Amino acid sequence: MIHVTLPDGAVKEMADGASAMDVAKSISEGLARKVLAAKVDGEIRDASRPLPDNTALTLLTWQDAGGKSTFWHSSAHLMAEAVEALYPGVKFWVGPAVDNGFYYDMDLGGRQIGEEDLRKLEAKMIELARKNSSYIRKEVPKAEAIQYFSDKGDEYKLDLLGGLKDGEITFYTQGDFTDLCRGPHIPQTGLIKAVKLTNIAGAYWKGDEKNKMLTRVYGIAFPSQKELDEYLAMLEEAKKRDHRKLGKELGIFTFDDEVGPGLPLWMPNGTIIIEELERLAKETELKAGYKRVVTPHIAKESLYITSGHLPYYQDSMYPSMELEGVKYYLKSMNCPHHHKIFAAEPRSYKDIPLRLAEYGTCYRYEQSGELFGLMRVRCLHMNDAHIYCTREQFNEEFKAVNDMYLKYFKIFGIEKYVMRLSLHNPEKLGQKYINEPELWKETETLVRDVLIKTNTPFVEVADEAAFYGPKIDVQIWSTIGREFTLATNQVDFAQGRRFKLEFTNQHNQAETPLIIHRAPLGTHERFIGFLLEHYAGRFPLWLAPLQIKILPISDKFLDYAQTILESLKNADIRAEVDDRSEKIGKKIRDTELAKVPYMLVIGEKEQAENKVSVRRHGKGDQGAKALPEFIAEVSAEIKDRIAETAS
Amino acid sequence: MIHVTLPDGAVKEMADGASAMDVAKSISEGLARKVLAAKVDGEIRDASRPLPDNTALTLLTWQDAGGKSTFWHSSAHLMAEAVEALYPGVKFWVGPAVDNGFYYDMDLGGRQIGEEDLRKLEAKMIELARKNSSYIRKEVPKAEAIQYFSDKGDEYKLDLLGGLKDGEITFYTQGDFTDLCRGPHIPQTGLIKAVKLTNIAGAYWKGDEKNKMLTRVYGIAFPSQKELDEYLAMLEEAKKRDHRKLGKELGIFTFDDEVGPGLPLWMPNGTIIIEELERLAKETELKAGYKRVVTPHIAKESLYITSGHLPYYQDSMYPSMELEGVKYYLKSMNCPHHHKIFAAEPRSYKDIPLRLAEYGTCYRYEQSGELFGLMRVRCLHMNDAHIYCTREQFNEEFKAVNDMYLKYFKIFGIEKYVMRLSLHNPEKLGQKYINEPELWKETETLVRDVLIKTNTPFVEVADEAAFYGPKIDVQIWSTIGREFTLATNQVDFAQGRRFKLEFTNQHNQAETPLIIHRAPLGTHERFIGFLLEHYAGRFPLWLAPLQIKILPISDKFLDYAQTILESLKNADIRAEVDDRSEKIGKKIRDTELAKVPYMLVIGEKEQAENKVSVRRHGKGDQGAKALPEFIAEVSAEIKDRIAETAS
Repeated sequence: MIHVTLPDGAVKEMADGASAMDVAKSISEGLARKVLAAKVDGEIRDASRPLPDNTALTLLTWQDAGGKSTFWHSSAHLMAEAVEALYPGVKFWVGPAVDNGFYYDMDLGGRQIGEEDLRKLEAKMIELARKNSSYIRKEVPKAEAIQYFSDKGDEYKLDLLGGLKDGEITFYTQGDFTDLCRGPHIPQTGLIKAVKLTNIAGAYWKGDEKNKMLTRVYGIAFPSQKELDEYLAMLEEAKKRDHRKLGKELGIFTFDDEVGPGLPLWMPNGTIIIEELERLAKETELKAGYKRVVTPHIAKESLYITSGHLPYYQDSMYPSMELEGVKYYLKSMNCPHHHKIFAAEPRSYKDIPLRLAEYGTCYRYEQSGELFGLMRVRCLHMNDAHIYCTREQFNEEFKAVNDMYLKYFKIFGIEKYVMRLSLHNPEKLGQKYINEPELWKETETLVRDVLIKTNTPFVEVADEAAFYGPKIDVQIWSTIGREFTLATNQVDFAQGRRFKLEFTNQHNQAETPLIIHRAPLGTHERFIGFLLEHYAGRFPLWLAPLQIKILPISDKFLDYAQTILESLKNADIRAEVDDRSEKIGKKIRDTELAKVPYMLVIGEKEQAENKVSVRRHGKGDQGAKALPEFIAEVSAEIKDRIAETAS
Repeated sequence: MIHVTLPDGAVKEMADGASAMDVAKSISEGLARKVLAAKVDGEIRDASRPLPDNTALTLLTWQDAGGKSTFWHSSAHLMAEAVEALYPGVKFWVGPAVDNGFYYDMDLGGRQIGEEDLRKLEAKMIELARKNSSYIRKEVPKAEAIQYFSDKGDEYKLDLLGGLKDGEITFYTQGDFTDLCRGPHIPQTGLIKAVKLTNIAGAYWKGDEKNKMLTRVYGIAFPSQKELDEYLAMLEEAKKRDHRKLGKELGIFTFDDEVGPGLPLWMPNGTIIIEELERLAKETELKAGYKRVVTPHIAKESLYITSGHLPYYQDSMYPSMELEGVKYYLKSMNCPHHHKIFAAEPRSYKDIPLRLAEYGTCYRYEQSGELFGLMRVRCLHMNDAHIYCTREQFNEEFKAVNDMYLKYFKIFGIEKYVMRLSLHNPEKLGQKYINEPELWKETETLVRDVLIKTNTPFVEVADEAAFYGPKIDVQIWSTIGREFTLATNQVDFAQGRRFKLEFTNQHNQAETPLIIHRAPLGTHERFIGFLLEHYAGRFPLWLAPLQIKILPISDKFLDYAQTILESLKNADIRAEVDDRSEKIGKKIRDTELAKVPYMLVIGEKEQAENKVSVRRHGKGDQGAKALPEFIAEVSAEIKDRIAETAS
């Protein structure tokens, strides 16, 4: 008998040699049909492998990131099987799962393939999947493995084998295809119901441009045709909502070659959105007891040596400027400057927690090739703040930051989110991470405990912490289901000591504060990029650059239009008159295209009755209203930041 | 007979050989007693020299900058006469007028002088002044001049003579003292009624530290004792109002060695003032039809080559950073970035005038030795905007900018100001100024005409324009009479063409706009530095970082204090409770010291009657009021930005 502990704490007794799949079946056949892999004592494995005794088991399905990536890795093998069937003699390099699907790098022996070939390969993959072959794992002695791929004439796999030791080599076979692979894989190919091969690209062997160019085929696969259809529809919608396209059409931002790549210029409409977001942040932070500061964008090298940015973060910084023999750097983070403000006055426990906030503009180096619209930039306007607190205050402060996230999610209609707890990697202490193993452990536990206590959904990832402490990245999903990493929330046990920050505690002793770095609205760049997609450019009223357009039916009503405009402006509403001599139909169409939330159509009747005819974008005619009534309604909609969009 | 044109256009006929003083006397004896020098065809001269025919004459008195500087230059000669009388054998280098007074560099032959000596020198100067000696000008052949100073054994004056040509050498003599000097000077020493020698410093001969150290004595002089007394009182008051001292005491800003010199960190209280100023600017600019933009702080070298900042302005820029083989510079001005926003979309006459505004942060290089508190910094938050307009629109736009200045002057209680029109120098075309002689003339005339038409007080100064066009610096005086240069207003005929900026005019032709650069509130740094002195830290309510302090008479009333605090916060008023267990007298004193505009004292009576006892800073008890009444009053005071201070 073996003992298996499930995530809910229940312990199951199973026969010796029982697999994760056996555990699943003992729970329900329905569950077993969904199991793709298993997490066994933290490691993802085939669900079919026998379990050890006293083990912690999580069954992984399509709902789990680990289940999905196993599914896509197995899909890469299925694609390789199809490639081998259609183009015998192809040699294979590697075929991993990626964020959205999988790829395989292959040497097609000079053959060029195109769209049509992808369609044929997809058909072949489905044909092979229907055979429902099992993915069979086999441990292979190194000599035997070398013999196998020598016979096959595949120098790429032989190269891989060169780096492996005897005893750690496994083959996976499904149908007629065998691959050198450490796994894990899903039980059978039949689980793969729908496939889309999305792209063909060249990829140098081992990423080295001196090597041969291989062919990389990208694809994605799903456990049902419905899910593939939804995914393709989402991609189609995302294309329409592309923030670069909308950003240009709506006059939000622009780039200029002479200014430089990754450095957006915010046009008047984009600046209105920036200012509305900053107003929201300032209101929220004021209520939450934050104090605002303003700091310069540069500092001496010595500041960044003290902070540890040099050397831990230098690769992400702009190069230095040398002035009067001193090197200056553009700031890549606001924290060192804020620490200096903390240190500028003697602090006592009465000042703590001290919460310093700034919409600080940071500059980070990203390679030109990595830059992408507003999503990957070099100039970042951060909704930044640093909270200096005691260990005892940490839980409450951290929870308050979480609550602020939830408040924002509600305002922006973000329904799906997850916190991603990034931990350090003990092997990289002193290189990528500050070398304080005990403090890493302590703060990681601190953060994990708060997340558990507050029932916050979270996942853990190794080796992605900030250099000064564990961090939480907040992943959110847009209305069309695309995932974005926006906000960040970090605990810092290192910089307080490095900067010798101290406050006098209640026992009259000097104490170093813990520091929370947080940016719930992330950067303007990424957040507005997200909002453009999320709202498809149809911003809610409070964020819309132009809130109301007044459309006189003819030039006769221009004077009345002007008096309405004045009334709206006096109520701090952003409005304009369409004073072109165009037909009203065209005026309405153009205003709809510009995604303006409200139109006020005015003609003979409206002027006579001192009213306005209201049209809501995407919803059409809302009837005639007295102007004061209309102004009261939209003022409330703006003030309460109602999230309603016209979609 | 000669003909002399006075500033009001009147033409006087005078006898041949008549001097400016003769002209003054012909007007009135009272005027003649005040004349210090004369501007003759643009050049400042002794009032006693014969005038040429057909000349433009301005009589200069103490009210004119040229009159003052002549007065101080003559005072330097008077000091030298006193020095020679008390310490025979002293040798003299140079003794010019400066912004506030004069100095003379002297070789005292090893003698040390101190405060006591300065008092003796002052007395001697007044004694000599009472002799009322004339300043007598004499043209001297070079050989004779060399002979004179050889006999005197003054190698410094001989060194000066080495650089002069025969025919251009003049001596000035008053009483027993003769100096090599090109003048001009005031008529007699008797005009100097009051003297204060302010400082003794070392100064290397010719500013070269390899040379001998000379003794520099600074002083200032006035035409009456009353003016000197007022000046000394102003200096005393300015010391109390020193923005560096107040800035630290009130938690406005700080500097940090590791961040760098000239780079202020704005503390929470300073940031509140920044945000209030920005709110004022945004409101004002929104009403005036400006649109806001946000641009990065860096750009590629090529942008600054296009703009002309490289090479015309390079000395004031930070050095470059090199990234991926491209040089980037921190922006020293926002204009090139704004031009790129103008150019980002096709523009028509309907978009013109386009007014782009940004509180943009610029970085300029100033030598370490030149840095001074907030007045001379390297980081500048500018109240910047660029107006793109046609030549026909220029007058109206320029006038609107002037009106904005006047509005701000009123809000901040600035009663004395003058516009300083800075022109180019034709000799420096192509070096310091863009080489377009015709356009310089045209735009200088354009600006001068608007100033005259709008009755704006202004003075003209040569060789101080921006490199791209004439500029107006606005000089303002603080309540204690100190002068500050804050705002700027520039016309730019060059950058529009350099950036190929165009709009389609009503005739469907491409036209290049004129550009107005303007910054009425200057930079946060200098403006807040000015305001600290101007208000002596007693900010008007709307600007005060903490507006109201609630002072409970004892801990019993802390709950009531909290309910008042909540009401004030809900009304967007910045308030705090003094919850220390201190006597009410101490609470009041501490709050007065912190210059908080209002105190609300609450005790038994106030709580029972649901009232607050109001104290206004510097004015004391204002009686008890119901809270809603008090809130309504202060809300109005804040909203209307009432300038009343407690002083």
